[in-house]
Amino acid sequence: PAHRIAVIGGDGIGPEVIDQAVRVVEKAAAKFDKAEFAWNKLPWSTSYYQQHGHMLPPDGWDTLAKHDAILFGAVGNPAVVSDKVTVHELLLPMRRKFDQYVNLRPAFLFAGVPCPLVGKAPGAIDMLVYRENTEGEYAPVGGNLYPGTENEIAVQTGVFTRRGCERILRAAFEAARKRPRKTLTSITKSNAQVYGMGLWDDAYLAVRKEYPDVRSSSLLVDAAAMDFVRKPETFDVVVASNLFGDILTDLSAAVTGSIGLASSANINPTKQFPSMFEPVHGSAPDIAGKGIANPMAAILSAALMLDHLGLAASAAGTRDAVAKVLAEGKVKTPDLGGTATTTQIGDAVLAAL
Amino acid sequence: PAHRIAVIGGDGIGPEVIDQAVRVVEKAAAKFDKAEFAWNKLPWSTSYYQQHGHMLPPDGWDTLAKHDAILFGAVGNPAVVSDKVTVHELLLPMRRKFDQYVNLRPAFLFAGVPCPLVGKAPGAIDMLVYRENTEGEYAPVGGNLYPGTENEIAVQTGVFTRRGCERILRAAFEAARKRPRKTLTSITKSNAQVYGMGLWDDAYLAVRKEYPDVRSSSLLVDAAAMDFVRKPETFDVVVASNLFGDILTDLSAAVTGSIGLASSANINPTKQFPSMFEPVHGSAPDIAGKGIANPMAAILSAALMLDHLGLAASAAGTRDAVAKVLAEGKVKTPDLGGTATTTQIGDAVLAAL
Ligand SMILES: CC(C)[C@H](C(=O)O)[C@@H](O)C(=O)O
Ligand SMILES: CC(C)[C@H](C(=O)O)[C@@H](O)C(=O)O
Repeated sequence: PAHRIAVIGGDGIGPEVIDQAVRVVEKAAAKFDKAEFAWNKLPWSTSYYQQHGHMLPPDGWDTLAKHDAILFGAVGNPAVVSDKVTVHELLLPMRRKFDQYVNLRPAFLFAGVPCPLVGKAPGAIDMLVYRENTEGEYAPVGGNLYPGTENEIAVQTGVFTRRGCERILRAAFEAARKRPRKTLTSITKSNAQVYGMGLWDDAYLAVRKEYPDVRSSSLLVDAAAMDFVRKPETFDVVVASNLFGDILTDLSAAVTGSIGLASSANINPTKQFPSMFEPVHGSAPDIAGKGIANPMAAILSAALMLDHLGLAASAAGTRDAVAKVLAEGKVKTPDLGGTATTTQIGDAVLAAL
Repeated sequence: PAHRIAVIGGDGIGPEVIDQAVRVVEKAAAKFDKAEFAWNKLPWSTSYYQQHGHMLPPDGWDTLAKHDAILFGAVGNPAVVSDKVTVHELLLPMRRKFDQYVNLRPAFLFAGVPCPLVGKAPGAIDMLVYRENTEGEYAPVGGNLYPGTENEIAVQTGVFTRRGCERILRAAFEAARKRPRKTLTSITKSNAQVYGMGLWDDAYLAVRKEYPDVRSSSLLVDAAAMDFVRKPETFDVVVASNLFGDILTDLSAAVTGSIGLASSANINPTKQFPSMFEPVHGSAPDIAGKGIANPMAAILSAALMLDHLGLAASAAGTRDAVAKVLAEGKVKTPDLGGTATTTQIGDAVLAAL
């Protein structure tokens, strides 16, 4: 039976890049795994919000729950709808409602992509960041006292559970175990944040005992930010809290040459709920509508979806096709120094499949 | 009268680099400002802790309060004393007790220093990061429920006050106003952390009205991490919360070529209490005792102390001497690819004064 995929193109360049991702994975899945998709395009976006007063209809979560996966472009258009709405009515609730506790963000230095760091060879940077995606610093917990006055105090409470820390750590250790280098780095800041990061560290020390075959260490987030620049090649699997994972994955995207290549998967490993796949780049209002956005991040995110659906050959085929187009360097969008359009990249990746 | 300086060399490479900083600023201040110092060396360190059971004696804070400034190397030797002790009995309490709410961390790409980023000219990166240093994510607020059990929950509460946000923002705007580019970037994450960072943003919007001559904008911390790699030359003054400032200043140190050059000032602008000046690098147990640590971060931190004491000519002279030694490139410690010793760098900077 066809894999049922909900498609939320969203705003800005979201729909533009998702269109290309759909074309590519459709062909890849047919070719490598004889698999088919039933696509269900959903119009949820800031325009939808402007018409209806909410980001998704009352039965929206039920609708999404009936799918095998969600392919997501980007939502957000701060000029017309506050990010508070798009983020807090759609993106963060989705991660939590569907218990997508693993946010997987690979960073790979492809041949043909100019690296901003001196002297890094293609393939030298090859890491998987496992970001906790449902709790921690993003817990919607806190408040303001004496708002709007000179005495205002705001509290922003990170909430960490042992279960929440252990399950993301386990997901990361499982991934590390399957990789050639079998190396894992757990990101912390327990020297300053003793409660939340203290629990994170305890969970790390407990879980690492289950994986004697994995070489693991703990690293302060500030030192990690430095090492992502100084020696990114030393990282294999990195596991981090919600906020630290957010910051470090933008950094890993930067050092591998383009946010236009950064993919992500928001995974519910139990498969009780659909997982969601989205490029890291966001809606990019500045280049929306011009047809020049790089769809490779969306295509690579869709490849992570193929992996999740069990279509490993299709996923590998898609990644190889992207790598081939990048290595040839003939067709490039402006973010990589070229002049190609979004559709031309889609065409080139299809041709390379 | 002589400026009374408390000197805490501390652990590891701390005393080694501070010795050179003392030699250099003594000569610089005599030469450029005819100023003198009364140095008061204090033995507080992890060895002191092992002997006495506390990082500093009961009257330690009163002793420190009698000085005009504190020159600090680094404390920490995790092999013998937990970082919880050194950080939570000395470093963080010092910042709070002496209301050193400005943590100033300059990042400058000196000629002669290899930059890890492709194509950056000397001087191209020139930013001042103003980090909030007394509250926010480092508030010692939180706790653990059901500790040690599978149901454990930890809460880690960031506490932000309008007063605390406004005063660091004002310090940063004042600095921006005096610089040629007059540009300020306020770091936020209010799209996810609505309470704490929401108040930060409100304070930013209020304070920026007082500085119509400064061009300012707000930037998400994840985007900032990316832009510190992609286009660090676009930053002039950056103002950030305690945690975001911590992460971003390790990143700004990395992109300017060496943590061995990263200086910091923990300033109490009212001068009610002494300010504290320390290199960012820490005690570096791996190279301690070898005499190969780069003392330039300590020397540049001492230059920030000279600024704070009103000895601007001496501060500028010290920085020029460091820049000259770096540009000549004859005497370099291993972190910069050379073989010189800590003392040889001190000698070279003294000679260049
Ligand atoms: C030691 C640690 C608590 C400290 C901090 O995070 O402030 C250090 O990293 C720094 O930047 O001074
Ligand atoms: C939009 C924002 C809340 C989000 C996050 O911080 O998680 C984004 O930066 C991301 O990384 O997916």
